[in-house]
Amino acid sequence: MVEQKARDATMETVALTPAYVRDILSSLDADRTDDVCQLLAKLHPADIADVLGLVRRDEQRELLECVAPDLLPDILTELDEHLRDNIVQELAERQPDLIADAVRQLDSDDAVYLLEELDDASREAILEMVPEERQGIEASLQYPEGSAGRIMQRELIKVADSWTVGQVIDYLRSQVDLPRSFYDLFVVDSAQRPVGTVALSSLLRAQRATLVIDVADRDLDLIGMNMDQEDVAFQFSQYDLTSAPVIDASGALIGVILVDDIMDVIEEEADEDIRRLGGVGDETMSDSFIVTARKRLIWLGVNLVTAFLAAMVIARFEGEIGEMVALAVLMPIVASIGGNGGTQSLTVAVRALATKTLTPTNAMRVIGREALVGLLNGFVLALLTALVAYVWFANPLLSLVIGMAMVLNMITAALFGVVVPMVLERFGADPAVASGVFVSTTTDVVGFFAFLGLATIILL
Amino acid sequence: MVEQKARDATMETVALTPAYVRDILSSLDADRTDDVCQLLAKLHPADIADVLGLVRRDEQRELLECVAPDLLPDILTELDEHLRDNIVQELAERQPDLIADAVRQLDSDDAVYLLEELDDASREAILEMVPEERQGIEASLQYPEGSAGRIMQRELIKVADSWTVGQVIDYLRSQVDLPRSFYDLFVVDSAQRPVGTVALSSLLRAQRATLVIDVADRDLDLIGMNMDQEDVAFQFSQYDLTSAPVIDASGALIGVILVDDIMDVIEEEADEDIRRLGGVGDETMSDSFIVTARKRLIWLGVNLVTAFLAAMVIARFEGEIGEMVALAVLMPIVASIGGNGGTQSLTVAVRALATKTLTPTNAMRVIGREALVGLLNGFVLALLTALVAYVWFANPLLSLVIGMAMVLNMITAALFGVVVPMVLERFGADPAVASGVFVSTTTDVVGFFAFLGLATIILL
Repeated sequence: MVEQKARDATMETVALTPAYVRDILSSLDADRTDDVCQLLAKLHPADIADVLGLVRRDEQRELLECVAPDLLPDILTELDEHLRDNIVQELAERQPDLIADAVRQLDSDDAVYLLEELDDASREAILEMVPEERQGIEASLQYPEGSAGRIMQRELIKVADSWTVGQVIDYLRSQVDLPRSFYDLFVVDSAQRPVGTVALSSLLRAQRATLVIDVADRDLDLIGMNMDQEDVAFQFSQYDLTSAPVIDASGALIGVILVDDIMDVIEEEADEDIRRLGGVGDETMSDSFIVTARKRLIWLGVNLVTAFLAAMVIARFEGEIGEMVALAVLMPIVASIGGNGGTQSLTVAVRALATKTLTPTNAMRVIGREALVGLLNGFVLALLTALVAYVWFANPLLSLVIGMAMVLNMITAALFGVVVPMVLERFGADPAVASGVFVSTTTDVVGFFAFLGLATIILL
Repeated sequence: MVEQKARDATMETVALTPAYVRDILSSLDADRTDDVCQLLAKLHPADIADVLGLVRRDEQRELLECVAPDLLPDILTELDEHLRDNIVQELAERQPDLIADAVRQLDSDDAVYLLEELDDASREAILEMVPEERQGIEASLQYPEGSAGRIMQRELIKVADSWTVGQVIDYLRSQVDLPRSFYDLFVVDSAQRPVGTVALSSLLRAQRATLVIDVADRDLDLIGMNMDQEDVAFQFSQYDLTSAPVIDASGALIGVILVDDIMDVIEEEADEDIRRLGGVGDETMSDSFIVTARKRLIWLGVNLVTAFLAAMVIARFEGEIGEMVALAVLMPIVASIGGNGGTQSLTVAVRALATKTLTPTNAMRVIGREALVGLLNGFVLALLTALVAYVWFANPLLSLVIGMAMVLNMITAALFGVVVPMVLERFGADPAVASGVFVSTTTDVVGFFAFLGLATIILL
């Protein structure tokens, strides 16, 4: 750990610009391995991890062969999940000693990140090589994925509430095996329960004779070991935390979560919401196009079923369309605007649920407001549409029909847009993942049915 | 600042649960002001800011009247932008001394956050009340919104590169007016240029006689004063920074950006992407429904224009639809699946641009891959659709037509989905904001045109 720090301190890295990436890729294409290695040697481990995500599987192997062994642990922890699943598994099979070395060097949360998705045999082989770290890692792996217990690190500094500031400082100086980076110390009572946190800046400025508990912040934000990482991230950003203690069922301090791990969680969760709303899953740039296509096909398949559902509604009015083809011309407008209005309400509701600003408490206020917004915009758009339709087809009744259908569909869109994600969340489903298909199906079906149904009654 | 810290340390706060919010709202509704104030007094400033976002304007005033004056500065800095614009402006007009007090207590970045959107007269009135802070705040306001210079704080700790660790520690102990929280010190040369950062944890563990530069990390991540906050956030999350020095054009250290401010930026930017992709702008829960409706109407209006464009394509084939109404039944399927496929490519491209994994370097690889994915899924979906259409209408040529149209539209969708955001980014526009309308218009127009056009040639 100490050597690691020394290396970081003297290393001069260059930024990973697009031009730099282009140089690496063209050296790879031309099989100039020496050039590739030289280019890679100047990068920060996090940037090397990014480069690995931009190249094919066989090229990944080539790149990994030329990175400095002491950088490998940091590179591996910076890989995003899907890359890690492939690269670490492959290394674990071919060179398990490299992974074991990494586990020894890394903080426990990063070590767990490397091992959690390995197959059982590979993981067992590596754990046998690291007897000192084994118990802690196995304990972390007991906690469910995405829980506080899984993402916390076990390396932390705790001091007794009876200590003075001077004792704490002497203790810190005497320890060789401290965490790689820390911002706060934790004061614990005799039952190992955290009773305060001390920022290093407070410690430095306090008198040596002062009791450490007297310079501690006693308003603790305790994280239960089973808390979901999304809720942990919310606590960090809400209360501007830099680190937070994790406790077990008895209230004892078992780990710490640091802010840099939480930044990753915040990005991941937001990214997940965007991808799910867009109907794409956990694909990455290094997936083959066949894998990507298969991952996206599921969602498209669901949409195909709902598109046929909408087509069946239209088929119900085949006779009417035959009599008046203008209906076929105008009907997609009603469905399309309804779809867009529904997406707006849905987006607002999904974000409000994610940021905890939409709760059962204010649900009725929000639903009422969305309905009013839908009604108001429905009226404005209905007027515009009716006007254009009148100029086009010179049929006042047709304009009336499309206007009425549009108001109806916009209100439906607004209501479903907000209610569907709330219901999904209530039943423990992710509102981002399936709301879109429910809402767009509804606005298509209601849009076609309202327009063609009203036309049948009023026009024909 | 010192009293502030003391208060935080002894204050016990409760969590803002939905039940707690309900209690506050029902006390507000029943005009039980004392209860409201008691409930509010137990909350963390960040939670009080959230409560302000859930209530009407007149209720906001009622709530603000009962918060402890020493909590007000922290509450105001935790408000999100739109709430701040209203609440701080109103306070600045009615009780400018409260805002001036807040400016004195807060770090410079938070003070700037309060003042940046005030009207000129109110801001000037407050700046006159804070002569000590005035110059720094005016300097920060010179930098554009969302730049490093605007979000940095001027309070930081810098030490000369000739100092020893002992000198630094004595200096820290002797200063009364240190920043509220800090994790790193900056070592500067005689021209005030940063040459290293020292983590407090390294300082604590070093010998007093050591030169401070020898325990510093010299691989600095320097932030230029004009760097966009999105790029700053990228640096923080890429290199796991807790703080980073901001430099002016001469390379001199002028401020520092801390990780807790960056968490807000990461959340804001992701939130912005989601909202823009969903066609909603910067609305908040406390906007009236009329304001919300107006904000959303612009986007719906654009979509109305494009929907009429698609309708005009259909109108071009009125005769053909009159001859064969099945065309009207099936045509929305082609457009709808194309729209979903386009949204998938678009989502992937917008995210890849935001996370810098899609650059001019690998653009051709990505475009090629999307085209292949579109082709492959287009074929699979075309087969399924043709089959169902055959079972339904028993017309093999109709099945052929819808299958061909679907493959064409899926390839178009995939290509436009990735190219449109890239082109928008190239021309300096936000790819999230307008890509959707381009892509869905294209898939509608191409979908209807390909299906009806092929039907005209092959079927009729």
